[in-house]
Amino acid sequence: MATIVIKIGGGEGIDPRLAAPEIAGLVRTGERVVLVHGGSHETNRLAWALGQPSRTIVSPGGQQSRRTDRRTLEIFMMAYCGLVNKTLVEALRGAGVDAVGLSGLDAGIWIGSRKGAIRSVEDGQTVIIRDDLSGKVESVDTSLLGVLLDSGRLPVLTPPAVTPEGVAINVDADRAAAATAAALGADELLLLSNVRGLLRDPADPASLFAEVGPETMEEARGAAKGRMKNKVLAAEEALAGGVGRVVIGEAGGEGAIARARGGAGTVFRPQAVLA
Amino acid sequence: MATIVIKIGGGEGIDPRLAAPEIAGLVRTGERVVLVHGGSHETNRLAWALGQPSRTIVSPGGQQSRRTDRRTLEIFMMAYCGLVNKTLVEALRGAGVDAVGLSGLDAGIWIGSRKGAIRSVEDGQTVIIRDDLSGKVESVDTSLLGVLLDSGRLPVLTPPAVTPEGVAINVDADRAAAATAAALGADELLLLSNVRGLLRDPADPASLFAEVGPETMEEARGAAKGRMKNKVLAAEEALAGGVGRVVIGEAGGEGAIARARGGAGTVFRPQAVLA
Repeated sequence: MATIVIKIGGGEGIDPRLAAPEIAGLVRTGERVVLVHGGSHETNRLAWALGQPSRTIVSPGGQQSRRTDRRTLEIFMMAYCGLVNKTLVEALRGAGVDAVGLSGLDAGIWIGSRKGAIRSVEDGQTVIIRDDLSGKVESVDTSLLGVLLDSGRLPVLTPPAVTPEGVAINVDADRAAAATAAALGADELLLLSNVRGLLRDPADPASLFAEVGPETMEEARGAAKGRMKNKVLAAEEALAGGVGRVVIGEAGGEGAIARARGGAGTVFRPQAVLA
Repeated sequence: MATIVIKIGGGEGIDPRLAAPEIAGLVRTGERVVLVHGGSHETNRLAWALGQPSRTIVSPGGQQSRRTDRRTLEIFMMAYCGLVNKTLVEALRGAGVDAVGLSGLDAGIWIGSRKGAIRSVEDGQTVIIRDDLSGKVESVDTSLLGVLLDSGRLPVLTPPAVTPEGVAINVDADRAAAATAAALGADELLLLSNVRGLLRDPADPASLFAEVGPETMEEARGAAKGRMKNKVLAAEEALAGGVGRVVIGEAGGEGAIARARGGAGTVFRPQAVLA
């Protein structure tokens, strides 16, 4: 049976619970599914309600990430691991799936390194931030995931990750999903969010990359702006790690997973990274 | 090796992370430990900050519980499953324990029934509440807990529980810990919080019940007021379920677990329920 890692984004307007019946169908037919989710919109809402509005770091290369001090990390845990993870597990149980919600901290599933110093562009100036609690997944411990999948359960994974010393760190969920798919030797990674796929021109929905292969990888990298940069990077990392196929597509609505698996969105093929 | 269920309360002034080094020591020596925690103070703080202050239901019999509408349940998930569970798992990982944070929803560990209608005494009048999302653990699925314990991991469990239909319900964590201890055939259940134990006179710390046996069980039941009612009920339920020994004692401070195991607090013996 195929192993599929499905990442559903946490942006505004996405309700990952809508995917519960379709995921239940996949699990019922024996597919080995790992679900990864985000929670950025709920984190932003909560942070705002608690009087600590979210701040974004933009690297000199244009990559965006959340400014994560300790209080932000706690708010992040409440939204990602509390609200989004548990209401999603609830919806999946309601759809008949034996879901198990876990963060990357639990069982040390996502071990990562904390960024030492982050360069951030603020008002045109590059500043150095040293106390940020964000980082990158370096290794995935699949032992518990394997046990859960072997017993027909559905792991539902979300950031944060954890350093070898046991410090929680905010990591990008797309790239964490990619690392997970690679570690599991997954056949497929779906990165679903509130965009149709990778666009040549973000303002023009018709400018979709239908497929990214060796001859278009460089162009795809250049076209990716903002949050899409991490998705393209995640796609590359997954393919380099041996994942059979990556699709960046749309979440939400009945049949969204089937559509993405059928090729709706942007399909990345292994040759894209073997050029 | 002994199986021990340790419940650490979530009341004001308790930081369950302080127990991490001591729990790490137990796990290192091969004890099978399940940690259960509350989160009421953090839930109250969060609810207050979000403009939805907590409300307490008092039954005609004097038992207290949290009024749990859907929004309260979501806030509850953020505090219990997000903030408290994940910062506790983080502290345990920092102490070298392979902790796995789970709610009663995950893998259907705590299956419960939702209360149909709750009688609540408000301003001297008994009113009926029908939309409350609270209930009681009816069965514990120990299969995943067993797998985790067998592999040297530490399950860190917290409410909510879930109905067979997949609806999340707020349950009392003391009684959920008791049900878990019974289902695991635990040797010991420790109910640790910010009180020394069960007092004959809540105003007099010297009036501690050192031990509750057949001849004092009735008196103990009568002496328990407020939140202590659930702890005494939990102790009775655990013993009736075959747990070797229950201690109601104090959390916090180095050596709190060893002191409770050594008998500091109120010790309930199996004979208490076999009278």
